[in-house]
Amino acid sequence: MTHVEHIGIAVKDLSSSVSLFEKLLNVEPYKTEVVENQNVTTAFFKTGETKIELLQGSSPDNIIQKFIETKGEGLHHIAFEVEDIHAQMKRLKQEGFIILTDKPQKGADNKLICFINPKTANGVLIELCQTIK
Amino acid sequence: MTHVEHIGIAVKDLSSSVSLFEKLLNVEPYKTEVVENQNVTTAFFKTGETKIELLQGSSPDNIIQKFIETKGEGLHHIAFEVEDIHAQMKRLKQEGFIILTDKPQKGADNKLICFINPKTANGVLIELCQTIK
Repeated sequence: MTHVEHIGIAVKDLSSSVSLFEKLLNVEPYKTEVVENQNVTTAFFKTGETKIELLQGSSPDNIIQKFIETKGEGLHHIAFEVEDIHAQMKRLKQEGFIILTDKPQKGADNKLICFINPKTANGVLIELCQTIK
Repeated sequence: MTHVEHIGIAVKDLSSSVSLFEKLLNVEPYKTEVVENQNVTTAFFKTGETKIELLQGSSPDNIIQKFIETKGEGLHHIAFEVEDIHAQMKRLKQEGFIILTDKPQKGADNKLICFINPKTANGVLIELCQTIK
């Protein structure tokens, strides 16, 4: 785990949340991106080495929509950058963590990603991500 | 906002959560600290420029206990380091954010801190912190 790569925040309306975080962080988003295999639309801000990723669901039954229905808008997940996602997945499985997929998936922002089951991680949805070079 | 200074995670049992995050992050906590004016006990891990702060309530009616009763264990707040907390508080008030205290308070880890009302920040409890020099 080299650093916190990003913090994911679930929002209902990306446009108004982008305006809000522009004021909060005093910086504009550096990009927006549709992640089609997850049915979410994202906007990214940069603060130091960590990105703030706003996430809006783009289909009625997607994971962000479900999260908001249960817990409301707010902090959704944290992502740690790793150098070798396969090695970290193997290590964490051996330590008792449950990884939600057998193999890394293609995520937003040019990354290979996987998620750890929050039930095995103190209720925190944790993403690992490795930059595709 | 220079960077994400720390991410606060609400836990029921600090001791077992410290063991869990040692395995997850593959690093030991660099300190634990009791923040008496907030009735919480904390443990800090370092990953890149961001700290992971585990928070356990140390009185029955403290903020962490109440958070866990409502939302369960998990992500509690994010903190941004600022160079001048008074200037940022003034700027954010002008932008429409509600700050929970009129003046910065003494927080854990040698910081002056304040919190933004999550109702004005997309459901995210946001802390600003300035290192006391």
